[in-house]
Amino acid sequence: MRIGVIGCGYWGSKHVRVLQQTTDVDYVAVIDPREDRRTALLRSFPALGSFAAFEAAARHVDAVVIATPPSSHVDLALQALRAGKHVLIEKPMATSVVGARQVIHEAEAAGLTLMVGHTFEYNAAVWRLREAITSGELGSLYYIDTARLNLGLYQTDVNVIWDLAPHDLSIVNYLLGRPPDMVQAWASSYAHAYLKDVAYLRLQYRDMGTTAQIHVSWLDPCKVRRVTAVGSQKMAVYNDLADDERIRIYDKGVVAAEGDLEPYEMPMSYRYGGITSPYIALQEPLNVQDRHFVECIQSCKQPLTNGENGLRVVQMLEAADLSVKTERQVALESLTTISG
Amino acid sequence: MRIGVIGCGYWGSKHVRVLQQTTDVDYVAVIDPREDRRTALLRSFPALGSFAAFEAAARHVDAVVIATPPSSHVDLALQALRAGKHVLIEKPMATSVVGARQVIHEAEAAGLTLMVGHTFEYNAAVWRLREAITSGELGSLYYIDTARLNLGLYQTDVNVIWDLAPHDLSIVNYLLGRPPDMVQAWASSYAHAYLKDVAYLRLQYRDMGTTAQIHVSWLDPCKVRRVTAVGSQKMAVYNDLADDERIRIYDKGVVAAEGDLEPYEMPMSYRYGGITSPYIALQEPLNVQDRHFVECIQSCKQPLTNGENGLRVVQMLEAADLSVKTERQVALESLTTISG
Amino acid sequence: MRIGVIGCGYWGSKHVRVLQQTTDVDYVAVIDPREDRRTALLRSFPALGSFAAFEAAARHVDAVVIATPPSSHVDLALQALRAGKHVLIEKPMATSVVGARQVIHEAEAAGLTLMVGHTFEYNAAVWRLREAITSGELGSLYYIDTARLNLGLYQTDVNVIWDLAPHDLSIVNYLLGRPPDMVQAWASSYAHAYLKDVAYLRLQYRDMGTTAQIHVSWLDPCKVRRVTAVGSQKMAVYNDLADDERIRIYDKGVVAAEGDLEPYEMPMSYRYGGITSPYIALQEPLNVQDRHFVECIQSCKQPLTNGENGLRVVQMLEAADLSVKTERQVALESLTTISG
Amino acid sequence: MRIGVIGCGYWGSKHVRVLQQTTDVDYVAVIDPREDRRTALLRSFPALGSFAAFEAAARHVDAVVIATPPSSHVDLALQALRAGKHVLIEKPMATSVVGARQVIHEAEAAGLTLMVGHTFEYNAAVWRLREAITSGELGSLYYIDTARLNLGLYQTDVNVIWDLAPHDLSIVNYLLGRPPDMVQAWASSYAHAYLKDVAYLRLQYRDMGTTAQIHVSWLDPCKVRRVTAVGSQKMAVYNDLADDERIRIYDKGVVAAEGDLEPYEMPMSYRYGGITSPYIALQEPLNVQDRHFVECIQSCKQPLTNGENGLRVVQMLEAADLSVKTERQVALESLTTISG
Repeated sequence: MRIGVIGCGYWGSKHVRVLQQTTDVDYVAVIDPREDRRTALLRSFPALGSFAAFEAAARHVDAVVIATPPSSHVDLALQALRAGKHVLIEKPMATSVVGARQVIHEAEAAGLTLMVGHTFEYNAAVWRLREAITSGELGSLYYIDTARLNLGLYQTDVNVIWDLAPHDLSIVNYLLGRPPDMVQAWASSYAHAYLKDVAYLRLQYRDMGTTAQIHVSWLDPCKVRRVTAVGSQKMAVYNDLADDERIRIYDKGVVAAEGDLEPYEMPMSYRYGGITSPYIALQEPLNVQDRHFVECIQSCKQPLTNGENGLRVVQMLEAADLSVKTERQVALESLTTISG
Repeated sequence: MRIGVIGCGYWGSKHVRVLQQTTDVDYVAVIDPREDRRTALLRSFPALGSFAAFEAAARHVDAVVIATPPSSHVDLALQALRAGKHVLIEKPMATSVVGARQVIHEAEAAGLTLMVGHTFEYNAAVWRLREAITSGELGSLYYIDTARLNLGLYQTDVNVIWDLAPHDLSIVNYLLGRPPDMVQAWASSYAHAYLKDVAYLRLQYRDMGTTAQIHVSWLDPCKVRRVTAVGSQKMAVYNDLADDERIRIYDKGVVAAEGDLEPYEMPMSYRYGGITSPYIALQEPLNVQDRHFVECIQSCKQPLTNGENGLRVVQMLEAADLSVKTERQVALESLTTISG
Repeated sequence: MRIGVIGCGYWGSKHVRVLQQTTDVDYVAVIDPREDRRTALLRSFPALGSFAAFEAAARHVDAVVIATPPSSHVDLALQALRAGKHVLIEKPMATSVVGARQVIHEAEAAGLTLMVGHTFEYNAAVWRLREAITSGELGSLYYIDTARLNLGLYQTDVNVIWDLAPHDLSIVNYLLGRPPDMVQAWASSYAHAYLKDVAYLRLQYRDMGTTAQIHVSWLDPCKVRRVTAVGSQKMAVYNDLADDERIRIYDKGVVAAEGDLEPYEMPMSYRYGGITSPYIALQEPLNVQDRHFVECIQSCKQPLTNGENGLRVVQMLEAADLSVKTERQVALESLTTISG
Repeated sequence: MRIGVIGCGYWGSKHVRVLQQTTDVDYVAVIDPREDRRTALLRSFPALGSFAAFEAAARHVDAVVIATPPSSHVDLALQALRAGKHVLIEKPMATSVVGARQVIHEAEAAGLTLMVGHTFEYNAAVWRLREAITSGELGSLYYIDTARLNLGLYQTDVNVIWDLAPHDLSIVNYLLGRPPDMVQAWASSYAHAYLKDVAYLRLQYRDMGTTAQIHVSWLDPCKVRRVTAVGSQKMAVYNDLADDERIRIYDKGVVAAEGDLEPYEMPMSYRYGGITSPYIALQEPLNVQDRHFVECIQSCKQPLTNGENGLRVVQMLEAADLSVKTERQVALESLTTISG
């Protein structure tokens, strides 16, 4: 298989490195108008094909990875699909639900593989966290709370919600196995003239009694990459920065006291137990993801993170933006109807 | 001076210990219907007076500290004021704006000292953080973000907002020197049948461009007591659990890039510098606070955390509750008008 | 039972507080020539007896706790034993083997209870660590490494070895169930004119293949209270400063590769697993210890940390001092013979 | 300039990557008998020359980097020098003082550049620590204490002292600007059949009153890379694992109390101040080092870490081994005389 990577930035360079080592990938080309960037990559990977634009590369590749700024994803994806190429799009898949739908539609019509780069769904720590939830180890799930904070890196074409929250939305969707019903968001532009650089999202799942809160920031003194999942039996924290113990499971919880309470009695009792950090073997998630892309093409299988999966995240992002503007919560369904 | 402490719980016992050692306090009495609790305290402090109710203690004391569950604060404060006693009320001062106003009104009319136990305003680490803001060290202030999380302790008569957020609201008011214009809140009841046990508040200061976010939780695996203040020049974190470095000042920031940007250029540049943890001498804040109460009574001075100060926090709490119910933001002014 | 606490310092005050709450202790007296110190304690505990010297207190007490500077332990213990009192001596039991032996001898002859305050042997975290070793959970024990570091507190009559190492020596003896054969030590006086303020000890257990290293310091920027135990199967760390996870058990280890090795092959293979922090219920060790003292007196039982136990630690301390002076290792047996 | 890297292991691969990007290096060749290793490197760096042995590579290179197991360093260095090549040898330079001297001698005789890869002397954090010492910021230096601990990686031809301590010895020599007078060491073989896998070294500097302690381990549950420097005025910690604050300077210390002391008075007083983490710009030390090697060749300058520098470390390693065997301290001078 021959794969072209469109875009030589942070994620594009990673895909190049990973694809070079992927079984059944015979040829990797880099596609970017910036010649200096291509030259730099070629220094490390001299076997790379190198093209300034997709048109020139088209006949040399069977599939493309789109790793350009988000606002260009849809156009590039449509161009590639119309040229008969399988497509892996970096997150977010599109900057509008309408665009995402069109990409899905054309991929289906053409019978081509469409996948979205929600890398965390290929991360062994996230798998372990999902297992803690679905196996009942945590008991009934109360809530998920995430934080993805850092100083930078500001993007040029999307705000912090579209830049960082796709990770967390994809993780939360994966953990819960379903999208939320309602989305609310608070966001502010502090250091940037107009792009929101700090945001808080709240996802509600009506019949589950579960909520998810997401805090994303380009403007925080401390780097944080955390997902907390609290259940009625146990609680789990996934800290992506803790090399040796990404997942910690706290065997503690709170139980409502039974019977009638005297005025001064404690309403709840607490259960305290040990903490366990299961061993999680290291495997680069991008590697797992890109191999999955190749296998899906070969076997005509739907990718785990297919177009619908990517669309769901775009819907949630659009709902979050709308909630920021309208200062109220947004039903995901209403949005689907409007833009669908 | 002779002081009665009403309520033998967590905070009441602390006041007893502290007042016993306070200069110019000659006599301390404990007032609580629970005889076993009083007996327990008397074992450690045998010189304490001991009464089952305020009526019995009234003629033995000049002032009272009210450290009972919040829903009883107003009635007890009015009773004490009407008996001519100076009053220090634990936070929150009242469970309604109406109640808080009545207490302020009667204290003023009677010419008695009224103070609210917003302890963090007597905390040297908070003073240092305020200095970082008001001196311009942080530059222009972008936002404040706080987290006060733990497993427990659930209260019987108020939700987590009324229980934990008074600390953070008082800190934020003190740091900014003014109340916000708008309050928004998200909250959920997870482990408790009806009391909200996790909440997020958002305070907006229209003409300042500053916001404050507050996260409080009775249901978190990790204990957190953190206030982050981010400015255009520097950023500061106050971690109340870090004994040796409660305040850390990060000399870093982000600056919008100047001139016209090429499409692929970074929109912001980043400045990285050192981290400083100024030495903060330990002094128990409750001690500082209770001494201030005694001095204000002696000198007829207005306390730093007087009734108006306490009222502002109650207004914000009421606004937060209303925001949770109405699912929209609440202008503090509207509330003032309605309930004022 | 009536107990006198001799010495009003850090440990003496703690014993007073604890003994006041101990079942079967009807009367506690404090014995110290410094009147101001006694007065201060009486303010908190007014039911305390108060005496300037043991002679005056003797007929009011059945037993004493000796919590004075180490150089006075032996004289005070002998005085108390000769007056027919049971004795609990703070660590180190004596500043010489000769003195320790004499105290043991007289206690035995008089049929009185003699106990040494090696508090860590009454600490639930140390119990759990011992369980990890004796149950075989760690496999065969390779070594123990401890660090007890801080800035201060310098003592007046003993060096850092005699001040801090008794804790670690007692822990190590308890964990291994036997004393070492050889003791070596390095020590320096940096900030103090003549007392050693930083030291490293090494204990060897010939037929076990185990060693223990102990690092104690009065002159370190960071507070550390750590015991690491490394076995062939697992490794454990006891961090006394980590409130929620004092014991962490690492399921990892190293195994010699089998068969003949090619020149470039790795000589060992590594096994990586999870980390577990068992829940350890909090119970103040001094409380457990002082209750044990009372029970041993009542039932004429040998205390867990009896005179022989305390003597073993004094022998190791004396051996360490001798090793520092002679710059070579000291066989504990040789020392026993010399001073025995 | 054309450089050959002998040895394709951990450090060899790093040199290849770094040298590929170094100005004035036109050609890099890898020299290793293991064809699979060379092939793997060529996949990433296809412009590399590739040779099974130095003989074949000799006429293609002007200089070599020797990154093979330590026991082969001297033979390979002599072979390269005799072929007229400049030489950079990884640490330790040799496994005996005799060997190190011979290499120095031949390099001098041939007028070729000889450098040793003591990377930490090219590390900006170490520079900052040295500045803290030499500028007097720490006051008079009491001691240095280092720890370099991990689980693995066991070597085949040298023990943990020769594998890990070269880093710390080179750091300590660099910080103090001179070698110690005496070396002592404790070491044990736990998991390995005969190679020492845990060791403690102690370096004494007679007329300075300073000591250095070094703890190295292949068998510890926790990864540690720490250098603590304690002075009379301030204390500094260099933690190589703390990305954002490698150096922390503690403004605290201890001062002997003046005048005659009452028996119960504290002998020392303590000074507590803030903590500062100066910003240290990231620059890969190996990069700095290899550029320095090229510049020294070009300008016929003595490298900062020249043969004498490398020899000093080998002397200290040999002294440590001797101390382990003889169980006593070893004067570096005696060793110099014997083997010199």
